[in-house]
Amino acid sequence: MKGNSESNLKIIPLGGLEQIGMNITAFEYEDSIVVVDCGLSFPEDDMLGIDLVIPDVTYLKENIEKVKGFVITHGHEDHIGALPYVLKEVNVPIYATKLTIGLIENKLKEHNLLRTTKRKTIKFGQSINLGKFRIEFIKTNHSIQDAAALAIYSPAGTVIHTGDFKVDYTPVFGDAIDLQRFAEIGRKGVLALMCDSTNAERKGFTMSERTVGRTFDNIFADHTDSRIIIATFASNVDRVQQIINSAYKYGRKVVVEGRSMVNVISTASELGYLNAPENTLIDIDQMKNYPDSKMVLVTTGSQGESMAALSRMAANIHKKVTIKPGDTIIFSSNPIPGNEKAVSKVINELSAKGADVIFQDVHVSGHACQEEIKLIYSLVHPRYALPVHGEYRHLKAQAKLAESLGIPKDRIFIMSSGDVMEMNQNTAKITGKVQTGAVFVDGLGVGDVGNIVLRDRQHLSEEGIMIVVLTLEKHSNQLLAGPDIVSRGFVYVRESEDLMGAARVTVEDALDECLRHRVSDWGRIKSVIKDSLGEFVWKKTKRRPMILPIIMEA
Amino acid sequence: MKGNSESNLKIIPLGGLEQIGMNITAFEYEDSIVVVDCGLSFPEDDMLGIDLVIPDVTYLKENIEKVKGFVITHGHEDHIGALPYVLKEVNVPIYATKLTIGLIENKLKEHNLLRTTKRKTIKFGQSINLGKFRIEFIKTNHSIQDAAALAIYSPAGTVIHTGDFKVDYTPVFGDAIDLQRFAEIGRKGVLALMCDSTNAERKGFTMSERTVGRTFDNIFADHTDSRIIIATFASNVDRVQQIINSAYKYGRKVVVEGRSMVNVISTASELGYLNAPENTLIDIDQMKNYPDSKMVLVTTGSQGESMAALSRMAANIHKKVTIKPGDTIIFSSNPIPGNEKAVSKVINELSAKGADVIFQDVHVSGHACQEEIKLIYSLVHPRYALPVHGEYRHLKAQAKLAESLGIPKDRIFIMSSGDVMEMNQNTAKITGKVQTGAVFVDGLGVGDVGNIVLRDRQHLSEEGIMIVVLTLEKHSNQLLAGPDIVSRGFVYVRESEDLMGAARVTVEDALDECLRHRVSDWGRIKSVIKDSLGEFVWKKTKRRPMILPIIMEA
Repeated sequence: MKGNSESNLKIIPLGGLEQIGMNITAFEYEDSIVVVDCGLSFPEDDMLGIDLVIPDVTYLKENIEKVKGFVITHGHEDHIGALPYVLKEVNVPIYATKLTIGLIENKLKEHNLLRTTKRKTIKFGQSINLGKFRIEFIKTNHSIQDAAALAIYSPAGTVIHTGDFKVDYTPVFGDAIDLQRFAEIGRKGVLALMCDSTNAERKGFTMSERTVGRTFDNIFADHTDSRIIIATFASNVDRVQQIINSAYKYGRKVVVEGRSMVNVISTASELGYLNAPENTLIDIDQMKNYPDSKMVLVTTGSQGESMAALSRMAANIHKKVTIKPGDTIIFSSNPIPGNEKAVSKVINELSAKGADVIFQDVHVSGHACQEEIKLIYSLVHPRYALPVHGEYRHLKAQAKLAESLGIPKDRIFIMSSGDVMEMNQNTAKITGKVQTGAVFVDGLGVGDVGNIVLRDRQHLSEEGIMIVVLTLEKHSNQLLAGPDIVSRGFVYVRESEDLMGAARVTVEDALDECLRHRVSDWGRIKSVIKDSLGEFVWKKTKRRPMILPIIMEA
Repeated sequence: MKGNSESNLKIIPLGGLEQIGMNITAFEYEDSIVVVDCGLSFPEDDMLGIDLVIPDVTYLKENIEKVKGFVITHGHEDHIGALPYVLKEVNVPIYATKLTIGLIENKLKEHNLLRTTKRKTIKFGQSINLGKFRIEFIKTNHSIQDAAALAIYSPAGTVIHTGDFKVDYTPVFGDAIDLQRFAEIGRKGVLALMCDSTNAERKGFTMSERTVGRTFDNIFADHTDSRIIIATFASNVDRVQQIINSAYKYGRKVVVEGRSMVNVISTASELGYLNAPENTLIDIDQMKNYPDSKMVLVTTGSQGESMAALSRMAANIHKKVTIKPGDTIIFSSNPIPGNEKAVSKVINELSAKGADVIFQDVHVSGHACQEEIKLIYSLVHPRYALPVHGEYRHLKAQAKLAESLGIPKDRIFIMSSGDVMEMNQNTAKITGKVQTGAVFVDGLGVGDVGNIVLRDRQHLSEEGIMIVVLTLEKHSNQLLAGPDIVSRGFVYVRESEDLMGAARVTVEDALDECLRHRVSDWGRIKSVIKDSLGEFVWKKTKRRPMILPIIMEA
């Protein structure tokens, strides 16, 4: 990757398209690398037993002397979640806005990394110099406060990375997106725009967060007699702020429930991002001192996550809250694709308990729709378009938008993870590929579960396992014990005694055959057992359990 | 359940709310039972390795002398799919409309039940006498042809069961729903209405199937140069009819691909439910004789099912169709809840191959929305409302609609599976509960996989298994071989040699301790091994693999 192309800017997504959620992109110019974001993703359905998925940062480790720092756009898990893992191998300073740094510090504390990690809070409008790069933080709006777009200045040109954003002219907290600054930088010439694609398939404009506040007011006005429980995303502080506003207006107290939400809300309060009138926020244990009609409970679980507070209430296993007929429960959220069924399950459980569940039109997205994306393109006017943040269909949808705005097709790139994009004012092309991938975190293990283990788990999950054990005498290879068959996850053994008996006979016959022919290679014996038992079971049941022969020597 | 209440009508859902998809309801009056529908459901995410789920029909078996027959409303899997399994135990005649009988016969053939099953084709408007019941078939509209509502006449009163329906004033094939007949029966007095709740949360009116035809015309007009591939539900013959119509209009040939769709389309053609102009339908092997711009491929896979034709094309493993840049691919379907991610995966794969994927506004539902439901209630004017077909949230939504139409709350019932509803003109109440449940079909096995097996599969899928084997000498209990540890789905053994070595030492120590103390109870030895190894592994990895000690005797 080195040599004659050192005067180009390199842009290398180390996650992204192939590892949705792992937002992490290296920007490289000569001896300098700056990394934008460091997110994790949650396991797909086929990643059985995996807790988290983090990016493979081999490329950063191999170029550690160049890496100047992590620049973080905002505090969502898919942008900061992998930091504690990656920092253990790539320990460079972190730069971000105040709330983002606060949320990162929570993570560093948990992982005992607070002392060893350098971090610096950056203000909007401020720039930092990192090697050959200068990075400017630009105010945007998103479903978490303090979200930033980045202007990444290099000798080869300027890249604008929007981070996750929407255009909110009337935000709940702080300023609207700094469109003037986008325009100003655009006026000076922008080499490439890397723009959020999440909602690129959706027409129109995303509504202001403030519209949800009005909806809350209406619901509060319509349900003055019942307890109100509202589930939303733990990190949406503005949403919680608006719930507090409505609660105060209608004389209710507010309880925040769910570990992740309590964490974010305390950090946001400490740092001045949330304002609750005195005595409005109360502790969950004080709830009993107030009538239902004076309570609002804000809770995690809007995605139907089985261990979240609302799901535990719905399943009647929450220690402090019992759902009652007449409760009004609001899902202030939309299901993230893949969570629809889990959310529906919770709605069903709550409805069956007699609660009135409201889940339509009580949420707005944090991401830009088509008209907003077009607005940013028009202000920035980039030479190259590199859609980011989304599945292929979303990147493609943005690519089409860019084309419709007059950017030639050959200047629009949908990049894969690991692609090395080299660009300058004249050309842009993908010149190479670096190692990237998904590293599985399972319990304390990072990377010790891979595809073979997952394939075994998949097999076990669908068909179960049959274990055949036997003991042979050393040298003579005489059968001393067994063969015994033990199964798990296959069939009810008690109700399938005939089947298991016949299976044992099959194995005995196969083994006899081997021993009679003086087969002494255990590998061979195992494979004969596997094949004969496998065939027998398939014929009888049309199933293929994992068959594991174990031979012991005595 | 017998005795003094024999002059009431009993309605007993044997599936339904707790087993979504398993639509099967027993209607009982004195010595007569009629069963409406006999559907299956597809496994939930936690039913690992299960192929199908069918209803527990113990109640029918125990009352077999009363059971007069199955009356089937329409030919969808969730209404006919369990018939081949249930008929083996409850062999009574089947009554349904022509296409429905045709589709049922396909299933009977597959299961070798054609000769032993009585069946009778019923026309709309026709009635059949089954014991104390008379059943009348009423024309409705749905996403499959020949769908019927049922008027179930008993001495205790008339029940109207809508089946799955929508109101389509301009259906593609045959007549519109027979609203006059609903009105006429309603005029005479209806005891109870059992109405489809699927779309009860949706406002307004479901659009006519015919509107999709106009959309096809527009898309065909806009894409005259490219191959068109359309995925839809295998059983939606009207949809395929409209694709054929547009294809004919625009001079294209039509290939039908995907086993289930080919089956339904041939049955529908044979029975006269599909009309293709001569030489319009061609075989997939003839495709090569026509340019792309003259082809339409209609295929299964609209739900992202991994083995369906479209998914195989997207994954590049379809034998006869390769996706090319420029292909126009239409999803004429909406993802059924739970399938969103799978559908999105296929859209991404197709987009990445350069295809233009259209998935918005090319589908209409087959189920009634709120205004249609209100219309049926207003025509039928039932004394009691028993919402059916949907999750709790949907039944609840219909219950609210019924209430808004003036039906008193205490005459609206959301029934659980197994509830025995007894009713007459004066009262209706749930008086008992019969056995119901989900029976798992896995390969050839029906019911041999239950909750313990599933729990083991779940455990195996998340954490894998560690097997500890050892051989003890008879009587003396001396260790002859082992302990050996074998694991699957736990960790990469080669990369975790230290861990596995230390695990072995842990087991050896525990075993030594047992043998030294002359513990001869194998159950006790196993549990000591399990506990010590489990604790060791948890401490080192924060994981809990299944631990399976096997002791052999030599």
